[in-house]
Amino acid sequence: MSEKFIVETSARHVHLTAEAFAVLFGEGKELTVKKMLSQPGQFASEERVTIVGPKKELPNVSILGPFRSANQVELSATDARSIGIAAPVRESGDVAGSGACTIVGPAGQLEISEGVIVAKRHIHFTPEDAAKAGVKDKDIVWVRVETDGRKAILGDVVCRVSPNYATAMHIDTDESNAIGAGRNQMGEIVTVD
Amino acid sequence: MSEKFIVETSARHVHLTAEAFAVLFGEGKELTVKKMLSQPGQFASEERVTIVGPKKELPNVSILGPFRSANQVELSATDARSIGIAAPVRESGDVAGSGACTIVGPAGQLEISEGVIVAKRHIHFTPEDAAKAGVKDKDIVWVRVETDGRKAILGDVVCRVSPNYATAMHIDTDESNAIGAGRNQMGEIVTVD
Repeated sequence: MSEKFIVETSARHVHLTAEAFAVLFGEGKELTVKKMLSQPGQFASEERVTIVGPKKELPNVSILGPFRSANQVELSATDARSIGIAAPVRESGDVAGSGACTIVGPAGQLEISEGVIVAKRHIHFTPEDAAKAGVKDKDIVWVRVETDGRKAILGDVVCRVSPNYATAMHIDTDESNAIGAGRNQMGEIVTVD
Repeated sequence: MSEKFIVETSARHVHLTAEAFAVLFGEGKELTVKKMLSQPGQFASEERVTIVGPKKELPNVSILGPFRSANQVELSATDARSIGIAAPVRESGDVAGSGACTIVGPAGQLEISEGVIVAKRHIHFTPEDAAKAGVKDKDIVWVRVETDGRKAILGDVVCRVSPNYATAMHIDTDESNAIGAGRNQMGEIVTVD
């Protein structure tokens, strides 16, 4: 259980379908890569959208590519509360009955009746690293994170195992700030009585 | 070690000196009680200020009374980052070299060269409750918080013991959101190996 992994902070972002992107940016426009992410094939794009809630809006929100089969907006609980959306803590893809919002792009806008979530903290594992850590897909674990002044052991962390992943834990900005996570922050699975 | 205590969330707020209040609201104006807080004698006031940083401002920030001997602005790390202030994690009162900002009121404004902090998480204990929990003033402990979906054990929690306190743990909004704290959220000190 002494295998350490990197703990990365996911800022607010959206995943879009190709159809949604065409509505927001116009037919024929393309999603362009700004920066490749740690998960193989995933990237932050140059294109940005505004997320509009009943109380306020969040401009300049990153679109992560490639396109997906459903639209999903991942906010921190602080974000969601600030714009007036009730967003549940969910695993990616589990959007039934989640929050509603309006997504605004330069060419159009889209109202989604569900899809706004606060991401459940999770670890992406390669099968090899999962085996070393003694976990399997969907296991729920505790992760100890040593920081300067805000140490924590985070529970309810879901393990996700796939040969398509790079091993990394993902937390949101509330979690990152709450634990004072730094660059190259490492974590490790621990057992809690 | 099975003594539980309430875990309360402190939203962003300021503490002011009487002199600072006079500058911001005008000579002769009074700080008026909106709501008494859990700590004896402490209250949220009707009066509000705007906290201005290099990038942005936070309007409508609560003043907590009574007046203090130094000005102090307590923000979440999310808040501080959003308005462009580098605010360290500190105990209340430990403001040397902390963040700078401008505080704006209806009658004037005040630049402070230090005083902006992110509050270090802490537990206020009565001497009786501290004895029951087996802690003394300035002890650093781990606190387990059971929530639905974001359980956590928070380290680097400082114990503060005084007959002037009511027993309660205080965390900021980042921490509250990160652990999914609810109303009447309870916590307990645990030992971590």
